[in-house]
Amino acid sequence: MSPTANDPPVNYGVLLFPGFQALDAFGPLDILNMVSQTMPVKFSIIAPTLEPVSTQVKAMAHTIGQSIVPTHSLANPPEDLEVLLVPGGKGTRDLEATEELVEFLRATYPKLRYLLTICTGSSLAARAGILDGKKATSNKMVFKWVMSVHEGVDWVTKARWVTDGNIWTASGISAGMDMMYAFVSEMYGEDVAAEIAQRSEYVRNTDSTDDPFSDLVEV
Amino acid sequence: MSPTANDPPVNYGVLLFPGFQALDAFGPLDILNMVSQTMPVKFSIIAPTLEPVSTQVKAMAHTIGQSIVPTHSLANPPEDLEVLLVPGGKGTRDLEATEELVEFLRATYPKLRYLLTICTGSSLAARAGILDGKKATSNKMVFKWVMSVHEGVDWVTKARWVTDGNIWTASGISAGMDMMYAFVSEMYGEDVAAEIAQRSEYVRNTDSTDDPFSDLVEV
Repeated sequence: MSPTANDPPVNYGVLLFPGFQALDAFGPLDILNMVSQTMPVKFSIIAPTLEPVSTQVKAMAHTIGQSIVPTHSLANPPEDLEVLLVPGGKGTRDLEATEELVEFLRATYPKLRYLLTICTGSSLAARAGILDGKKATSNKMVFKWVMSVHEGVDWVTKARWVTDGNIWTASGISAGMDMMYAFVSEMYGEDVAAEIAQRSEYVRNTDSTDDPFSDLVEV
Repeated sequence: MSPTANDPPVNYGVLLFPGFQALDAFGPLDILNMVSQTMPVKFSIIAPTLEPVSTQVKAMAHTIGQSIVPTHSLANPPEDLEVLLVPGGKGTRDLEATEELVEFLRATYPKLRYLLTICTGSSLAARAGILDGKKATSNKMVFKWVMSVHEGVDWVTKARWVTDGNIWTASGISAGMDMMYAFVSEMYGEDVAAEIAQRSEYVRNTDSTDDPFSDLVEV
């Protein structure tokens, strides 16, 4: 049992924005929803405003999406947030529109116990300066772009996910689920993670260094 | 190229209800969202009413959830629906509350080109009589309950997913993604499915008979 397993976090939140990748968020959140069946969990959905926020990619007007209802706005975030999840998605490419997210992360990170990013969510954390001097990873097919948005991060191109201190960063989209199972295992014990994966009929990758997609990186 | 690859469906919908399993829906939908970047896709979210519908399990008041905004109600569903996705989740256990979903499926199935269920979503299709005499599958840990809700279905206990005519049924939660990739491969061609899986860094199970969780069935 890890030290945190005796004092696991309770207050979780996810940071959503237009054009977030649905599975980046709902892969890990489905696991967290199941954790909440047996463990105390509080949960917030933080977005630019309280208006429903869509996965739809604005720059690709013909694409489809789904809209999620936030519980908090960036201006009035929840207090006592312990764990924040940050998905990626094509929405992260709009550097101007996402600047308010970057500012929120810069202000919020020091109060968190854990920050978890999925896919290009790590580009937002990088721009906030949070990853300076830290190891981190991201989506393999857009790694070059992620590296270009901010200097000073020790990017790891071969990893399913990376942990450095209290920051966990996952590779592209689906990798968020493997990272979240590892996080649940560390916070609540491997038995809790294993039981949820079984109920979810999910074949886990439990080795963070086993990355079948690292060859896709063009650096 | 399969016959359908020349005339793939355009009009998709998902049927949501209180207590649906987030990943049952958003696993396949994330793939469909990416299909829509290169193929014509129209998409509807159908729910009992137009009120946001939550994954939260009502019978477990302490659990967390996320709320999705429907585009259509059961009373005014979209016209020309070609493909309907039906997730499962603990919400399916309330036989009284879900009766209106069962009636909707019974009325809608004859007009569809394809019906796809994930996890215990197949219990709703079974109750609608749609699976009578057909092969189908479901979540392995609650298979016994699913079999109990309706007689006359040829349940397959060892399958990642099952196709019978125009009905595709997936096993528990995560299996919906493998089924959806197979569906996309058949509709649009394997190159489209493979490209999306690569961008999603998803390790596919492409063999519908390869079921790592069939031993969990207690029948």
